[in-house]
Amino acid sequence: MSLVVVGSVAYDGVETPHGRVERMLGGACTYISLAASYFTKVRIVAVVGDDFRQEDTDLLATRGIDLEGLERVPGKTFFWSCVYSADMNERTTLQTDLNVFADFQPKLPEHYRSQPYLLLGNIQPALQRSVRRQMDGVRLAGGDTMNYWIQGCREELLETIREWDFLLINDSEARLLSGESVLRRAAAAILELGPRILVVKRGEYGAVLFTAGGCFSVPGYLLDRVLDPTGAGDCFAGGFIGYLAENGAGSRTGPLDMALLRRAVVYGSVMGSFCCEGFGVDRFRGLTRAEIDGRFREFKASTDF
Amino acid sequence: MSLVVVGSVAYDGVETPHGRVERMLGGACTYISLAASYFTKVRIVAVVGDDFRQEDTDLLATRGIDLEGLERVPGKTFFWSCVYSADMNERTTLQTDLNVFADFQPKLPEHYRSQPYLLLGNIQPALQRSVRRQMDGVRLAGGDTMNYWIQGCREELLETIREWDFLLINDSEARLLSGESVLRRAAAAILELGPRILVVKRGEYGAVLFTAGGCFSVPGYLLDRVLDPTGAGDCFAGGFIGYLAENGAGSRTGPLDMALLRRAVVYGSVMGSFCCEGFGVDRFRGLTRAEIDGRFREFKASTDF
Repeated sequence: MSLVVVGSVAYDGVETPHGRVERMLGGACTYISLAASYFTKVRIVAVVGDDFRQEDTDLLATRGIDLEGLERVPGKTFFWSCVYSADMNERTTLQTDLNVFADFQPKLPEHYRSQPYLLLGNIQPALQRSVRRQMDGVRLAGGDTMNYWIQGCREELLETIREWDFLLINDSEARLLSGESVLRRAAAAILELGPRILVVKRGEYGAVLFTAGGCFSVPGYLLDRVLDPTGAGDCFAGGFIGYLAENGAGSRTGPLDMALLRRAVVYGSVMGSFCCEGFGVDRFRGLTRAEIDGRFREFKASTDF
Repeated sequence: MSLVVVGSVAYDGVETPHGRVERMLGGACTYISLAASYFTKVRIVAVVGDDFRQEDTDLLATRGIDLEGLERVPGKTFFWSCVYSADMNERTTLQTDLNVFADFQPKLPEHYRSQPYLLLGNIQPALQRSVRRQMDGVRLAGGDTMNYWIQGCREELLETIREWDFLLINDSEARLLSGESVLRRAAAAILELGPRILVVKRGEYGAVLFTAGGCFSVPGYLLDRVLDPTGAGDCFAGGFIGYLAENGAGSRTGPLDMALLRRAVVYGSVMGSFCCEGFGVDRFRGLTRAEIDGRFREFKASTDF
């Protein structure tokens, strides 16, 4: 059951209290794909410049990721850099050079269009919509967005997510999108906008799944050491949809399998937690499915009562 | 199995985005006792002035709370007032008049001294220690503290908690007490200081229980409406120790009953969540044990996977 992922493939510069890397592989599409690749076949749609390194292509390829939709054009790859506060709860963007990403027009290779799962990383809502409409017979489609689009392209965003099955955002985005300050009310309002499944990510504090049937909360995994939180939310998304795809979840209209959705939220949390253990995508270079399943069991053991 | 609670009984002035009350019953001992009274017999040790209202005494009495240790002295009852930020995540103290509380020297009535459970609310560590030492053959003793004592009376506090079985504090206090910024490490360091049981309260994000055997996390309950968060941490403590007392938990040296401790943390969360639903202690005027057990089941249903 393969998954199409659309979003940015980038180079990132990151500084945290634990170190600084000038330039490393990053981007939402990269993180989502790497995380999801432990569960299902992933096919990506993205654009990079002619500076994109072979070793980075190789990393994606070793995870079995289909790169036919990875467009390579003259120019430089999207570059973004940031610095984290001492407690890593805040980050400041230092530089955003869209480069070749500025003219990104996602085009799906023919064999992508009939795939059952689609995850739309955080890009311009109109682009997300165009991709959604290129897909045929999708079982589950959804994605991420951010404050920038919620404030700047509200109508376009609302039109876009109306066609989604699931939406993954963080608490402040949920409040901004709904205009409600209490999370439970914000969620109820968002579930009126189209998606039947809402996952609100709360960083180190975990995540909450909302559906018409109620809510499910998972606390954050308590890490011994957080090296770099960049990409954790995208890895959450990758683990979530990857696990759903692995298990053949969903049809656009049938009843939701709540037990499966709950486990998918936990697998999302597991993948987000691993992401924070290394700089950039480093943790995924040696990570195994056995470690992932082990941490899933640890979640179970530390939340059961 | 009765519980002795020591701490402040006060009048509070509180302003939140949902309203303002000039003067109402408050204080750590009050919140702890009311919450614990749903589970076990509670006996309080506190001091009030001659302005303490009969209706407030009556509220405590209707919950079966033993008031023999509630000293009444000439002067005014402790008064404290605060204002909450728009999102209620921050609060600013406006006024603190210790009044009769300034000279509080807790004296335990004779029949309190042989009780099996002791909860020391957030007061000067030396006072907490003097109470602990007045107790004879206690099964479980512990309490709360705050930044003010951690910074101002560190050595005294360390000597005090060395004799405790459990410590209940919030994340920032755990970090300050241990000098470790990562919660898991902070907890490991604190478990070396005396208490075998550490509960870290994380406000709306839930709580984490740490023991030598590992950790247990419970997410926060998602309230429809938070009227006033004052006292929620104390109600957590009351629910936690109340449930343990109801079930005859603990001996100072035997193995810990982890399943019971986990349920106690959930009952703590339940009581904290109810507290936020009314101003001051209002929610406890009509609350029933059936509602409490119902919310416990709701926690189970919304966290199970």
